[in-house]
Amino acid sequence: MIKVAIVGGSGYTGGELIRLLSGHSKVEISAVTSRRYKDTPIHKIHPHLRGLELNFSDLKPESIDADVVFTATPHGASMKMVPELLEVGSKVVDLSGDYRFRDFSVYEKWYGLDHTAPLNAVYGLPEIYREKIKKSDLIANPGCFPTGGILATLPLSKEKIVDRVVIDSKTGVSGGGIKPSKSFHFPNISDNINPYKITTHRHTAEIQQELTEFHEVKVSFTPHLVPVIRGILTTSHSFRLDDELNINGEELNKIYKKEYSNEPFVKVLEVGEIPRLSSVRGSNYAHIGGFEIDETGRIVVISAIDNLVKGASGQAIQNMNLIAGFKENESINHFGLHP
Amino acid sequence: MIKVAIVGGSGYTGGELIRLLSGHSKVEISAVTSRRYKDTPIHKIHPHLRGLELNFSDLKPESIDADVVFTATPHGASMKMVPELLEVGSKVVDLSGDYRFRDFSVYEKWYGLDHTAPLNAVYGLPEIYREKIKKSDLIANPGCFPTGGILATLPLSKEKIVDRVVIDSKTGVSGGGIKPSKSFHFPNISDNINPYKITTHRHTAEIQQELTEFHEVKVSFTPHLVPVIRGILTTSHSFRLDDELNINGEELNKIYKKEYSNEPFVKVLEVGEIPRLSSVRGSNYAHIGGFEIDETGRIVVISAIDNLVKGASGQAIQNMNLIAGFKENESINHFGLHP
Amino acid sequence: MIKVAIVGGSGYTGGELIRLLSGHSKVEISAVTSRRYKDTPIHKIHPHLRGLELNFSDLKPESIDADVVFTATPHGASMKMVPELLEVGSKVVDLSGDYRFRDFSVYEKWYGLDHTAPLNAVYGLPEIYREKIKKSDLIANPGCFPTGGILATLPLSKEKIVDRVVIDSKTGVSGGGIKPSKSFHFPNISDNINPYKITTHRHTAEIQQELTEFHEVKVSFTPHLVPVIRGILTTSHSFRLDDELNINGEELNKIYKKEYSNEPFVKVLEVGEIPRLSSVRGSNYAHIGGFEIDETGRIVVISAIDNLVKGASGQAIQNMNLIAGFKENESINHFGLHP
Amino acid sequence: MIKVAIVGGSGYTGGELIRLLSGHSKVEISAVTSRRYKDTPIHKIHPHLRGLELNFSDLKPESIDADVVFTATPHGASMKMVPELLEVGSKVVDLSGDYRFRDFSVYEKWYGLDHTAPLNAVYGLPEIYREKIKKSDLIANPGCFPTGGILATLPLSKEKIVDRVVIDSKTGVSGGGIKPSKSFHFPNISDNINPYKITTHRHTAEIQQELTEFHEVKVSFTPHLVPVIRGILTTSHSFRLDDELNINGEELNKIYKKEYSNEPFVKVLEVGEIPRLSSVRGSNYAHIGGFEIDETGRIVVISAIDNLVKGASGQAIQNMNLIAGFKENESINHFGLHP
Repeated sequence: MIKVAIVGGSGYTGGELIRLLSGHSKVEISAVTSRRYKDTPIHKIHPHLRGLELNFSDLKPESIDADVVFTATPHGASMKMVPELLEVGSKVVDLSGDYRFRDFSVYEKWYGLDHTAPLNAVYGLPEIYREKIKKSDLIANPGCFPTGGILATLPLSKEKIVDRVVIDSKTGVSGGGIKPSKSFHFPNISDNINPYKITTHRHTAEIQQELTEFHEVKVSFTPHLVPVIRGILTTSHSFRLDDELNINGEELNKIYKKEYSNEPFVKVLEVGEIPRLSSVRGSNYAHIGGFEIDETGRIVVISAIDNLVKGASGQAIQNMNLIAGFKENESINHFGLHP
Repeated sequence: MIKVAIVGGSGYTGGELIRLLSGHSKVEISAVTSRRYKDTPIHKIHPHLRGLELNFSDLKPESIDADVVFTATPHGASMKMVPELLEVGSKVVDLSGDYRFRDFSVYEKWYGLDHTAPLNAVYGLPEIYREKIKKSDLIANPGCFPTGGILATLPLSKEKIVDRVVIDSKTGVSGGGIKPSKSFHFPNISDNINPYKITTHRHTAEIQQELTEFHEVKVSFTPHLVPVIRGILTTSHSFRLDDELNINGEELNKIYKKEYSNEPFVKVLEVGEIPRLSSVRGSNYAHIGGFEIDETGRIVVISAIDNLVKGASGQAIQNMNLIAGFKENESINHFGLHP
Repeated sequence: MIKVAIVGGSGYTGGELIRLLSGHSKVEISAVTSRRYKDTPIHKIHPHLRGLELNFSDLKPESIDADVVFTATPHGASMKMVPELLEVGSKVVDLSGDYRFRDFSVYEKWYGLDHTAPLNAVYGLPEIYREKIKKSDLIANPGCFPTGGILATLPLSKEKIVDRVVIDSKTGVSGGGIKPSKSFHFPNISDNINPYKITTHRHTAEIQQELTEFHEVKVSFTPHLVPVIRGILTTSHSFRLDDELNINGEELNKIYKKEYSNEPFVKVLEVGEIPRLSSVRGSNYAHIGGFEIDETGRIVVISAIDNLVKGASGQAIQNMNLIAGFKENESINHFGLHP
Repeated sequence: MIKVAIVGGSGYTGGELIRLLSGHSKVEISAVTSRRYKDTPIHKIHPHLRGLELNFSDLKPESIDADVVFTATPHGASMKMVPELLEVGSKVVDLSGDYRFRDFSVYEKWYGLDHTAPLNAVYGLPEIYREKIKKSDLIANPGCFPTGGILATLPLSKEKIVDRVVIDSKTGVSGGGIKPSKSFHFPNISDNINPYKITTHRHTAEIQQELTEFHEVKVSFTPHLVPVIRGILTTSHSFRLDDELNINGEELNKIYKKEYSNEPFVKVLEVGEIPRLSSVRGSNYAHIGGFEIDETGRIVVISAIDNLVKGASGQAIQNMNLIAGFKENESINHFGLHP
């Protein structure tokens, strides 16, 4: 039994952390902070959590008593808090973008912020960095699009099969957060498909960092907002620039199966099988399918995740399980909500 | 640890039983039957259950080895199977309508079928029949609309406050089952609200049976199919025919809070608070709110449930927990999936 | 050819007026005002109107040159403008609630505002007041819910068949306007059904005013926000308080067919036929169906309209056609957009 | 005034032809055929067309009296009918795939059918073949995905700017037709994004045929079914294989504006502006936007069309207008239905 705290608990990822941690058999939630909602019962903001006897608090970092702290704070806010949390002895899983880049100048370029507290962190994608995560005090929890995009494409880069990838992602609206805006106004989303930041989304740099760790790959990325609440469906189109691709779908599938054979949360489908968002809705699983190659030598691989779970809070708890020495899927191995 | 089996596991309620039972810490699933999909891995039909190593079987009732059997079979099919299951010593939670009526002639009238195997059963709404359920071998699991409608209106009938109720329900499409049809064709449902069987739905009789158990009430019911996957939102409009209603919202609210004070799955909101489908999505909770009275003396109470969980498979497991002597909310007390 | 102007053109009803008027063969749009968007091309706010060469202006009422002015302004703002518009000789179709009540004290009670400019106006429901509309200078265009609720119930009141009606309406989100808010945030609407103002919605008084013009009827009304962009589906439940109802569905149907036999925009379906939102989407038609009676003597009649067209801008143009002496359905008789 | 007939009028494209033609000021519908629904009023199948006094007929091709016949028949069925229709003197706009390929062996390969009646036809995309269309008796109306994909990419091919394009399209469900199936079952579509035929869709060949008419381009195509009724949003990702792209967004935009400057139905947005499905819903317009280039040299251009209008029936009428010598946008120039 460990103590955990959530800093910034009034948003969607905060709510999701509370939902999942309240059902976790080996943790006790010691605090959920929110300056704005101090002393408010949590279910007033997260109506599904009615029955949970817990109020938001306004604790300062140094007053938080927790073995692991989740910082579900905006980009730029985390870096102001993380050093202090580490200092008082907590381990930190940070859900912002502040510690995701090994080269802080990349962060500064894409986020337009000076980084005032650079620290050593591990990129919290257990499928790549499991062993490092176990030993780290500071985990940079991956972005939602990078989780889907990297898992869908990683084996192709590792095996040096492709050198160009176009990642076309379709995301549920919860990825945009709990705050209303014109972009998330129901009549603007429903019956529409809205591409945005079509060449300039920050997650491009994060996908690039991880995919090029293994092999030189040109990474392009375009996200689309779709009339879905939860989930990211990623279509990864990739190929060789010289077009000499000597592989078929069955071989591709074998490579993915091998890569992910011991992964508790990655399910590799058969050639031609297509993953579904509903299969992973509310769960920490990633399903990966497709594995087809067309006449021009383009490979199509598709991944499905829940952006709030494997793409955020579930993965954060997966990281916590690793840090704490629990079973990696402890209390987060329930299936998705289909239909 | 008990053994459970599911007869008729290829539909939505079957899938939901497997999903919930596979995460139940005190049961082992001994069989899931489906004639059509014999030997097929369950995840081929229920894609979210990938990872569960279990195939459909084609066992006959007499060969099923289980302490409790869930019959997720169509109306008319259950009555052919239940006697045999009881005979070989299993207890049965039947999800069809076959055993829901204390007066079998009501069943025969509304279902248009001869009942060939009438047996003593208990109506499986624990909020009314908890003690009887614990001692019974055969539980008739309530219909989805009746669960929402009865919970929203029961205290008004019990306390003889109203004698006329109009139940206007809005249901997600999963209530119609896994089989495609014109009625559930996406372009016919999306951006539409479709009332159906506006005065003739079978669940009318079930709601009537339970609400009039306590007091003479005229019950009217109209269901609407709405562009939602899961959930039933029930608007219960009720009043006295003589219009002399001497009660206010706060008093109403107090009556509901008292009625449901010890219920593990019913949450009574405050006056004016409105329950949300997303608060109970995927969960066994019922949220009840509203409690307003207008100038004409009409009372409005609103309930929200997940039709596949509290309205079907979750409630069935709640009944199983009672039969088996487990804690009533054992392994089914997780919160809803909001957003 | 007449000149028309729209005051307050940046919202959804404004956009809909422009869309419909730009395709009207007998009008010319002389001005569309918006203080906020002065000089902005209209398609920057209403992206579907790209190709229309027209900018918002910031004209004062006295400078508007138009035979008919549509005031698509908020409640309370219209009364400040209408007198001046009438003075300079324009006829006015007001889309706010300011002139809908024959008894201004009812307005003041339900809207919580002092009425500073009471004037004679005609309630712009042509199905009741056609002849008066033709002769009037000021038309109070009906609310969206009242249009659907009155058309569904009027014949029952006129013929003194019922004396109690519960109107349970389901509205698309566009009825809430173009401005984002928590209530219209996609994750709060999608996969949800949200009742609101369950006993206190202002449109109650408007429905009451018109239905009781003919016969004493107790009117109750509850609206629900549904995951639909356009459309109001109204379920009208009605009965006699003494329960002695001596009529059947076919007779009911005949009464409705007679009542609406010459109406260009009301289509009466057969007994048991259910109207669909998609049948009237984008069109000025109202479809009315149901006409069933249950064992308790409750009558169910259902209407479908597009809240932005027959429920607002289309009906406003229908009124304009009447005022201007055009054919009543001139240029607004296109069919709905199904699927 | 010309006479037109629709062969195969019971599907979505048939319904859309009737909807649009019934509002066309220069045509009279002489017949709508459907073997299955012979003598049935059209509104029984297309409920939005209530008020149109017209029944389905079962006329043979030789008995159809029409200047222009629209064949909204399945692939393989058109080729059996078109020769006869031409023989009796009608001009034909065929909405199937039967006449879209200049090389019939391509048709036979992708459609898996022998072509039994090859004839000279013009590919009915007026933006390329306007002059030929005017003089032709047989127009092969383009597929929905090709319309969106070609319009988004054509100038890049014509100007030899790119030699590799990945077309990632998102289509509304109405594109799948009126017939229910598992793929279009509401719970399988809602809250999901479903890629399908990810490397093998027939429209690939059609896009390839037209884009490579001007320049050698490798074309890849993947469609996705999205929870939308109408509309195709196409994301066209393109680049040079040698990566030496010497152009910026403004220049790209200029090329598109020049290419489409005289097109009545193509609207070119500004750099960075994103087209919306709702802007073209129900209309014959195509909106094209994006025009951004990322650091890897990938160009992103996005198009939005209504799959049933510009992607099918509206374009068919545009072609009819050309054949008949009417104004090209006669009676089909209404704006889209936003919101």
